[in-house]
Amino acid sequence: MAQQDGNSETEFDLIARLFAPLSDSPHGLNLTDDVGLVPDTDGRSCITSDMIVAGVHFLADDPADQIAQKLVRVNISDLAAKGAQPVGCLLSAAFNQQRDISWLEAFANGLAEDMSAFGLVLIGGDTVRTPGPDTFSLTAIGRLGEGGMVTRAGAMAGDGLYVTGTIGDAGLGLRILRGELGAVALGTRTRLEGRYRLPQPRADFGRKLSGFASASLDVSDGLIADAGHLADASGLAARIDFDRVPLSSSATRVVKKDRSLHLSLLGAGDDYEILFAAPADAAEAIAEASGDTETPVTRIGDLAPGKAGEVSVVDGQGMALDVPKMGYRHF
Amino acid sequence: MAQQDGNSETEFDLIARLFAPLSDSPHGLNLTDDVGLVPDTDGRSCITSDMIVAGVHFLADDPADQIAQKLVRVNISDLAAKGAQPVGCLLSAAFNQQRDISWLEAFANGLAEDMSAFGLVLIGGDTVRTPGPDTFSLTAIGRLGEGGMVTRAGAMAGDGLYVTGTIGDAGLGLRILRGELGAVALGTRTRLEGRYRLPQPRADFGRKLSGFASASLDVSDGLIADAGHLADASGLAARIDFDRVPLSSSATRVVKKDRSLHLSLLGAGDDYEILFAAPADAAEAIAEASGDTETPVTRIGDLAPGKAGEVSVVDGQGMALDVPKMGYRHF
Repeated sequence: MAQQDGNSETEFDLIARLFAPLSDSPHGLNLTDDVGLVPDTDGRSCITSDMIVAGVHFLADDPADQIAQKLVRVNISDLAAKGAQPVGCLLSAAFNQQRDISWLEAFANGLAEDMSAFGLVLIGGDTVRTPGPDTFSLTAIGRLGEGGMVTRAGAMAGDGLYVTGTIGDAGLGLRILRGELGAVALGTRTRLEGRYRLPQPRADFGRKLSGFASASLDVSDGLIADAGHLADASGLAARIDFDRVPLSSSATRVVKKDRSLHLSLLGAGDDYEILFAAPADAAEAIAEASGDTETPVTRIGDLAPGKAGEVSVVDGQGMALDVPKMGYRHF
Repeated sequence: MAQQDGNSETEFDLIARLFAPLSDSPHGLNLTDDVGLVPDTDGRSCITSDMIVAGVHFLADDPADQIAQKLVRVNISDLAAKGAQPVGCLLSAAFNQQRDISWLEAFANGLAEDMSAFGLVLIGGDTVRTPGPDTFSLTAIGRLGEGGMVTRAGAMAGDGLYVTGTIGDAGLGLRILRGELGAVALGTRTRLEGRYRLPQPRADFGRKLSGFASASLDVSDGLIADAGHLADASGLAARIDFDRVPLSSSATRVVKKDRSLHLSLLGAGDDYEILFAAPADAAEAIAEASGDTETPVTRIGDLAPGKAGEVSVVDGQGMALDVPKMGYRHF
């Protein structure tokens, strides 16, 4: 962050003023150096990066603070789904050259809010200007529990497949924002758009995962795609009971008359729930973690021998369903 | 890296094929997961990120492999100047949507070459497409020696100011590439352009820094700007003897008839040499490190009480010189 490529001294000062307070720690060194220190985690650090581009992963006229928060949260979600607790992050930000001071301030405020909420400290990064769309990359460092990292690859045949929260809200929110869904009641619209704009990563539940999950990842590409990733890495096939996939009451209202729309939610991205596999004897531990963290958890299917990575969706009678693509994969 | 936003399955496969081999380690997990493991460094990890944008920090038609190598090297340079040895990195890459497979392959090849040369392993990242200029952020993790991190802030009044290698080659190379310098002999042009396109970070010398340096950073913004950063963080003023600033024979040839051009080299960026402060009794250790790593080191001035961050450049008679800006600061 200390190196402000291509910026005038004034802008250097501005950015220092905005971001240095987020880095007030022995690790961030107030961004006064080119390099920060990784918080000590007894050799159990893990790390992830996510990159988002205006017009691709968020809408250019989304509120700046929510863009920053989404950036933090997609990374928190990755860490949570691996059983890690976030400790520090680095921000690489290419701000479009038209973004003015108030926009940068709002961005920094959103960042500050979520870093505080999720217990992160800023330990470095880089800030540049771009003639193109705003492009941000956040690198987040997590501390793993004693059980180590929950990978995608540990599921066994017979394990149940579970998901936190509800599926499809973010995808519906995006379609509403794009005007693709016709009239939707105001309260419903607000809730669904909010889930698209501002994910709620399952940080608390994630910390408990290593106690019972055999494999896990967050639902970012869509339920079916991500179930496929987990199954593929574990060398198994996945079966999802369509009727068990949990929907919010808002989503239920929107899809109730449209079976095809309902089915499409399984292909929609951006939910940032946790999808995990666990053996039968883990049921009690799952219920306890769910209760302790007030996180709804639903068993939606299971893992079985079969073609690695294949995902089938079946109805209440066990008949295979054909799930249409959402149209836009991971906007 | 595992999450391939907005890409078709084919492109996902392609990128997996290109980048997964760089991640063949217990830490990178072959990029099969959303999160990688930080190599154990006995609690002495440091970390840095640098971001580069086509048309801002490199030329869009620079060779793809050299762009990747420059990205790696600017980060290696940051770590080296802090006394750290690189161990792992994460790549966030937004490739312009027009870049074809052969371009991506060349980029991956350049990355592979330098990661091997500098002993880095890829432990994660993210790959997306952008309608805008290619934008890359690399996060590099380093292992600090027992002496800990050499910051910008430790210089004391009376310390000498030293620089590795030569100053100004990259700035001249960029001006030649832009056609701003008139006729330059082919061999000279090739050498200077090469220093702009492909920095040679002082990785070996950097590892020795904590043995003698009181403060250090790499020269990326320009000698005067970076001397100012070091002096400012240390609460001192810096004085640079103009006649001692080391020039390559190529640079000497180009500037010999142009005093103003010669002076401007002190404001040119992208040299990626190490600028450091050290006390008088460190001379022997510096000479030894210089010899062991075959790295030229020159004492170019000193630190003194005064206005923090002020940099004066003086000639052989001690007269202050006025150094013009290079025109383009850190293209």
